[in-house]
Amino acid sequence: MTIYTAPVADTMFVLRHVLRIHERKDLPGFDEDLLDVSASALAMVGEFCADVLQPLNAVADLDGCAQAADGTVVTPPGFVDAYRRFAQGGWGGLAIPADQGGGGMPLVLAQACHEYVWSANPSFAMYASNLGHVRILMKHGTEEQQRAYIPQLASGEWTGAMGLTEPAAGSDLSLVRTVATPREDGTYAVNGGKIFTSGGEHDLTDNIIHFVLARLPGAPEGTRGLSMFLVPKMLLDDQGRPAVRNGVAASRVEHKMGLRGSATCQMNYDDATGFLVGEPHRGLAAMFVLMNELRITASTVGVGVAEVAYQNAAAYAKERHQGRSPIAGRNGDGAADPILEQPDVRRLLLTVGSFAEAARALLLWTSLQSDIAARSDDPDERHAAGRRLALFTPVVKGTLPDFSFESTVYAQLIFGGHGYMTETGVDQFIRDVRMAAFGEGVTAIQADDLVRRKIGIDSGRVVEQALADIEDDVQAAESTGQVDSASLMAMRTGLGHLREATEWISAADPAAAAAGGVHYLYLFGRVALGWMWLREAAAAARLRAAGEQSPALERKDALARFYLSRLPIETARHLDLMRAESESVLSLPAAAF
Amino acid sequence: MTIYTAPVADTMFVLRHVLRIHERKDLPGFDEDLLDVSASALAMVGEFCADVLQPLNAVADLDGCAQAADGTVVTPPGFVDAYRRFAQGGWGGLAIPADQGGGGMPLVLAQACHEYVWSANPSFAMYASNLGHVRILMKHGTEEQQRAYIPQLASGEWTGAMGLTEPAAGSDLSLVRTVATPREDGTYAVNGGKIFTSGGEHDLTDNIIHFVLARLPGAPEGTRGLSMFLVPKMLLDDQGRPAVRNGVAASRVEHKMGLRGSATCQMNYDDATGFLVGEPHRGLAAMFVLMNELRITASTVGVGVAEVAYQNAAAYAKERHQGRSPIAGRNGDGAADPILEQPDVRRLLLTVGSFAEAARALLLWTSLQSDIAARSDDPDERHAAGRRLALFTPVVKGTLPDFSFESTVYAQLIFGGHGYMTETGVDQFIRDVRMAAFGEGVTAIQADDLVRRKIGIDSGRVVEQALADIEDDVQAAESTGQVDSASLMAMRTGLGHLREATEWISAADPAAAAAGGVHYLYLFGRVALGWMWLREAAAAARLRAAGEQSPALERKDALARFYLSRLPIETARHLDLMRAESESVLSLPAAAF
Repeated sequence: MTIYTAPVADTMFVLRHVLRIHERKDLPGFDEDLLDVSASALAMVGEFCADVLQPLNAVADLDGCAQAADGTVVTPPGFVDAYRRFAQGGWGGLAIPADQGGGGMPLVLAQACHEYVWSANPSFAMYASNLGHVRILMKHGTEEQQRAYIPQLASGEWTGAMGLTEPAAGSDLSLVRTVATPREDGTYAVNGGKIFTSGGEHDLTDNIIHFVLARLPGAPEGTRGLSMFLVPKMLLDDQGRPAVRNGVAASRVEHKMGLRGSATCQMNYDDATGFLVGEPHRGLAAMFVLMNELRITASTVGVGVAEVAYQNAAAYAKERHQGRSPIAGRNGDGAADPILEQPDVRRLLLTVGSFAEAARALLLWTSLQSDIAARSDDPDERHAAGRRLALFTPVVKGTLPDFSFESTVYAQLIFGGHGYMTETGVDQFIRDVRMAAFGEGVTAIQADDLVRRKIGIDSGRVVEQALADIEDDVQAAESTGQVDSASLMAMRTGLGHLREATEWISAADPAAAAAGGVHYLYLFGRVALGWMWLREAAAAARLRAAGEQSPALERKDALARFYLSRLPIETARHLDLMRAESESVLSLPAAAF
Repeated sequence: MTIYTAPVADTMFVLRHVLRIHERKDLPGFDEDLLDVSASALAMVGEFCADVLQPLNAVADLDGCAQAADGTVVTPPGFVDAYRRFAQGGWGGLAIPADQGGGGMPLVLAQACHEYVWSANPSFAMYASNLGHVRILMKHGTEEQQRAYIPQLASGEWTGAMGLTEPAAGSDLSLVRTVATPREDGTYAVNGGKIFTSGGEHDLTDNIIHFVLARLPGAPEGTRGLSMFLVPKMLLDDQGRPAVRNGVAASRVEHKMGLRGSATCQMNYDDATGFLVGEPHRGLAAMFVLMNELRITASTVGVGVAEVAYQNAAAYAKERHQGRSPIAGRNGDGAADPILEQPDVRRLLLTVGSFAEAARALLLWTSLQSDIAARSDDPDERHAAGRRLALFTPVVKGTLPDFSFESTVYAQLIFGGHGYMTETGVDQFIRDVRMAAFGEGVTAIQADDLVRRKIGIDSGRVVEQALADIEDDVQAAESTGQVDSASLMAMRTGLGHLREATEWISAADPAAAAAGGVHYLYLFGRVALGWMWLREAAAAARLRAAGEQSPALERKDALARFYLSRLPIETARHLDLMRAESESVLSLPAAAF
């Protein structure tokens, strides 16, 4: 059985000392008491996650979702009750504006809370947030649509789903074939099939609101011919209550490698009544409101699962006694030492721990950009934060899930053969987190977005500014003497590699850039994580200068030193692999594969 | 559903052109017609694997093993019949000497055949070889034991099992607590419990012969107090037939991440009758005959699963059409191109393919050392080959399973979201192959064996000789102009890194060596794989010089260039990570984890 305790102290360290959210009182919603509110919200959500959601995680994996003969889907035992309590707590809509019926929290705090849900029960977390759906309606919905659907999505009374992928249209949405035919009453008849619809059907709520991409008659080919339709599972009556079953149903629930408690559905749209959301043929842009939201969510999965994997591996390493330690002075009196005293076990744990903590900081930093972009009263600052968010979205989505997967594999290794046994629960971390690499575009899709779109924004000035911001932080840490010189030099080297790589890939021809794109993405992600360690180390130094001493600060220093000392080694590899000859990649005839 | 075709042509390329086994007619059993025998054996086994074993692989994962109320274990549907046919074909005992009832094949050929079994059905393969058990008996058994057990193990009529791990004794066998008490009749009463006994109980054969480590009364503490006992599930009657149920039974069958058709059992020994094998207190040495065999087997898993993962990913990449290729001239006429024309998909496929083919060559090279060590009439050559085998055993076991796991993850990625669905079958590759990282010692245990024992053999002369052998091959390829200069320089650089790393780790203090050991191991493994590519490229050049042209040769060149161009980048990283500061690893107090 696995354990979990919400890392509230570390989250607060990031919010208070790294991001200093209390210094942004200028932003609406960042009130005087934000840190106090944060501490109590995190504690409350953390307790719920540890007490209610985490105990349901193993059974979610074991039992999965079942589909009844009538097509309805039964979620794992305990989910219905847990969801009711979760929604009552208002925890699904934390970042939805208060005037829309949500919690009105800054996104940075909501994401911090969501991380705990992902740690405790990733399958459950898949049903838990409607933020993206509400944002679509706020931005593109008619007043009537907003009135009819936002309050129930914000409260979690209903859930939202996304109908995007089709059997022949995955990474290439231009191939979408679902059609929507106008009816005389202004609605549309939606016909077609979608696959991989998460939460497409379940027993947690009375209604499920599908946002579906489909093609109007005579629409242009390609993605510019896609429109977005709102297709509720239950059509509403005059009072806005679910009344009549719409023509949308799950034709099957997939069996998956992991996330088995999350119902991944194949959906059938059979003359389903749909409502056009936004302009005709502009559905993809509207869908990207949700897609970008879910890309950040996928990064949150990475943080949450790495954290819980770390906690379990560290606990096992302390309790399992095998062999003697070669570390001077660590040999105890018993027949064997805890395996924590084996250098390789420590190396693995430090790799996992230093990833999880930096990833948390990076995710929250990214969320803070979203808050600034939405709330600042300075249009220049809003613009700049929005650009940073656009740049970092593929970086965090493309790297945090992959690095987290690697972390879970390391955590499992610490358990030896026991880690391979289902009972221990660690193989579920590996299987669950892997989903995050696929949802909302695999790594290469994120690399493509970063390389072909994002680093070109404003003629490259956004990425230049991001590098300059990191450089500023390095200089500040140097001038204040807060960070040791080896770590500073390592960070400078890593940053230099990113600069060099950016120049190279901006100038490369498209095929070579695509062949090297994933290594460019990884390089970017590692530098971003190193940047967070620089900021965390500087924050720890400030606290120490103020007289504070604790094992937590000692840990911060060791993890920062560990991560940064290895950073330029990793970035040099990505730089070199990105630039490696691509002739052997591109020239081999298809028949030779 | 997955596909599989045995790569007979590539296996033959390795045997004929890389290892040139037909030039070793001096070795007993390496007869004039060895290549012909090889071709027909590989074709026959390959056909059986593709036609009979591979179709049972998905159901093995789905149904797993079930335990009946009486403790007996039912293997997945189809396994009993497939095993009967497999044993009738004599394919479990291919490398067991003919005078012991086996196939008498060179190990190099037997391993080549076994790879196909691992590709087609890893769960089944877990039951399929008794070579190590027979070797123990040949070396340490009494004449009576040899007579009673070897023929049935060699024919596959019975299977062997290994009773090693206990709940509190995994990587540290000094903690084994199972006891064996002498009885007046010369047998022993074995009492205790073992876990992780593969094939500890099943319905494939009438008898299962357990080789068990236990402690005699008054035995010294530690591993020097362990003795080996043969404990048959069924005690034999006067005619040598299974007659009376012995006091050994499976108390449970584990649920595992993968390899679900292989019965991993918790065994209970309750006054079980055991027969001492070899000298008292020398059981661990005897067990290492089997252990070293199984370490090579774990490497075979790596090759087999990477191969089948490659085949499936390549087929999907050719058939799946999404988006347009950025490679000049690859844009077809349809709405989308095959994803094989995406550079990142090619990068992933080349990574998997260049690993699988080099790993096959390395495994067969290693097996050939075993043949030479056993069969050469030159005692110096026997000695040298035995040393090489000892040196490379932790290298292949420590790296091939890990690199293969990575390969399966890449293969899954090519399938996009479909790869996450159980139905597609690729997630099973990931879950199955992961077992190989745990069995017979995790990666760090192999690194420890390599660093603390193997590179010190004969004052380091064995590893020096291995490096010199590789250097010789580089020079030969250079002087004959068979390999392009970039690849030669890359190989030289990688080899230089290995030399530098060997010096560093030989001189490092034990704790720092342990902290860097896994990276040393990986560095060694990558250079060994690069060495195989050098030899494969040279072989391809010789064929081309003789007028041969084929897509297979073109493929060899591209894969060699791909692997070797990336080799020094990977080895530089391992070298640097091995030497990275270990202060942060070693100094952090346990409470801070």
